Amino acid sequence: MQNFQIQTPTNLVFGKGMQHQIGTLVKPLAKKVLLHYGGGTVKKLGLYDDTKKSLHAAGVDFVELGGVVPNPRLELVYEGIELCKKEGVDFILAIGGGSVIDSAKSIAVGMCCDGDVWDFFIDKAQVKKALPVATILTIPAAGSEMSQSAVITNEKEGRKHGMSSDLIRPVISIVNPEYFTNLPKSQLGNGVSDIISHIFERYFTNTKNCDITDGLCESVLKTVMKNALIAASDPKNYEAWSEIGLGGIIAHNNWLGIGRSQDWACHGMEHELSAYNDVAHGAGLAVLTPAWMKYVYKENINMFVQFAVNVMGVDSSFRDPDAIISEGIARLEEFYKKLGLPQKLSELSIPESAFEDMAKKATNAFFGDERGTGNFKRLMWQDVVEIYKLCK
Amino acid sequence: MQNFQIQTPTNLVFGKGMQHQIGTLVKPLAKKVLLHYGGGTVKKLGLYDDTKKSLHAAGVDFVELGGVVPNPRLELVYEGIELCKKEGVDFILAIGGGSVIDSAKSIAVGMCCDGDVWDFFIDKAQVKKALPVATILTIPAAGSEMSQSAVITNEKEGRKHGMSSDLIRPVISIVNPEYFTNLPKSQLGNGVSDIISHIFERYFTNTKNCDITDGLCESVLKTVMKNALIAASDPKNYEAWSEIGLGGIIAHNNWLGIGRSQDWACHGMEHELSAYNDVAHGAGLAVLTPAWMKYVYKENINMFVQFAVNVMGVDSSFRDPDAIISEGIARLEEFYKKLGLPQKLSELSIPESAFEDMAKKATNAFFGDERGTGNFKRLMWQDVVEIYKLCK
Repeated sequence: MQNFQIQTPTNLVFGKGMQHQIGTLVKPLAKKVLLHYGGGTVKKLGLYDDTKKSLHAAGVDFVELGGVVPNPRLELVYEGIELCKKEGVDFILAIGGGSVIDSAKSIAVGMCCDGDVWDFFIDKAQVKKALPVATILTIPAAGSEMSQSAVITNEKEGRKHGMSSDLIRPVISIVNPEYFTNLPKSQLGNGVSDIISHIFERYFTNTKNCDITDGLCESVLKTVMKNALIAASDPKNYEAWSEIGLGGIIAHNNWLGIGRSQDWACHGMEHELSAYNDVAHGAGLAVLTPAWMKYVYKENINMFVQFAVNVMGVDSSFRDPDAIISEGIARLEEFYKKLGLPQKLSELSIPESAFEDMAKKATNAFFGDERGTGNFKRLMWQDVVEIYKLCK
Repeated sequence: MQNFQIQTPTNLVFGKGMQHQIGTLVKPLAKKVLLHYGGGTVKKLGLYDDTKKSLHAAGVDFVELGGVVPNPRLELVYEGIELCKKEGVDFILAIGGGSVIDSAKSIAVGMCCDGDVWDFFIDKAQVKKALPVATILTIPAAGSEMSQSAVITNEKEGRKHGMSSDLIRPVISIVNPEYFTNLPKSQLGNGVSDIISHIFERYFTNTKNCDITDGLCESVLKTVMKNALIAASDPKNYEAWSEIGLGGIIAHNNWLGIGRSQDWACHGMEHELSAYNDVAHGAGLAVLTPAWMKYVYKENINMFVQFAVNVMGVDSSFRDPDAIISEGIARLEEFYKKLGLPQKLSELSIPESAFEDMAKKATNAFFGDERGTGNFKRLMWQDVVEIYKLCK
């Protein structure tokens, strides 16, 4: 186990009807709030009205900014910063999914720096300060409600990048799984794909002696996958959605990643798909993950045997580890299929002609300074092209 | 799953050599510190010197109070409060095991109230405020380094009680498993018994649909038990102690107990053993837990079958659940035995003549207001006597 440090101060408020507490919870922390959201969904769910009612009742002053889209845009972040400066906002409240929360976190950071907020996403600056952010979650997927990260798309440059800092963990997150029961099946698939990927990125490691976190990863993976299939056939099942929702939080608040080297190649490779063609993040991950596994598993056969047996339930002769691993990956592909997720880049309208540029961007070679991506096996741009080809 | 709220803001700093950071970490949070500890162990470990050196180097002003004993005493808490008031202390640093940390938390609460700090332990007062507490842990067991609870023994009244509040979670906890490799085997047994009991108290529940927390409990239980046996035969094994140390934190920071009813009967019944005869807490739990299981399992056969199969690895005919459960409990008893823990109250010098009084204290019947103990099966004083008899 490696030395580590973790601090997860988010006040997590979970369950039915909890959104009504938002005004009372925010009141002692804020003078003026930016209420940040996407489009019609929060209005259809009644969350937009509930939130405003709760803020009014608690006497919380606020301004609004809607319009966040999936793969949230830098342009709206700039607009948010300008609005918050003009209005004297000192607290951001995001209601919606991961995109809204990531946009809120970016505004929170942008409010506390003099330079360009994009610098934090391209490692040109380090977060030193941020306004506090609270969230009310409507989609379990990104885990942004308790995570130290945010991802933003810079449309002008065709780039999608993340920033990471303990300072952007939300101070309050309300998670009411009732909202999740209204999601279409595609959102279930995309969300669960993102959740299990957050665990995979931490699970697949060459760090030895990580029994506790190995076990935590495996148990949350199995539980989320089991309950995803329940929710797929019974979308109104509150209990199944509660398990997915809680699993999504734990998947990305980093308790599963402490003391071990983490990978993050699949996320890096996927961000290029989203940047190229506005692909749904979870759909891109479902295509890339099995291909990544096939390409890298020989780096650490034992780790992948453990995955196949402990997570995918493969029961076979241990004298043929390749067969066990192959069956484990096949079962994962079958799982994605059951959730209606794509299997090929062609289904996402990503042509082979785009592979080289995307691979070079994912490894930073495109910008003249190739860093590669991933830690389980360090991938250079040619490796990434091979992985794209495995699922073309 | 039940609605829940959780907030665990402790800055956890884990690994080799991390104690040297204490001065730097405390400096921005404290004007004057009480350095609180037990006896010779922290001096033998070099931790006492390392801590003072680090505080001096960071320019942190402090006073000292040693003398905490296992089952920490209320009298020393009073003494600590008096000293802190006299010296203008605004931050408590506990170096040692759970007893030192619980004593520190009690002083921290006592510093912020006008009345008697004992009132918080007998439900006469609710914690509204507490000084911040930091810890450097030397024994993995109590989980107090990240928990919201503290237990104190009132020697005059022969009572041992706990208080609970999010306000007493430490703000910083440094955990360096190197210290654990110096513990005698009895401390390994007592510590691990306490750790797995913290999980059992949360695990055994009648709340349905708790897949995520069921899985987390099971995986941490299995990992801690596996590594306890490694450390028993190889006491200098840093990696095994790291797993036990991390397991001990997660066992009691309450992430394993969210969204589910918790029990706590074994802890309640054990506190009476410690109050009666200064029994080591983990030893008392090892005696009581199997007896409690035998007495209550019929309340929820399915829960106990899950325990026997998923935690204790029993593989048998599911047409005979009683046999599966019986084998699961037998394996747990065998585990305690391997760690050198006692099996009977007589080994702890608790005579049968004491059972009725202890049972009445554990259920509050002694004080004319019988509340019972435990939630898995609510136990009244006669039930507790029966459980004591099962392990007399």
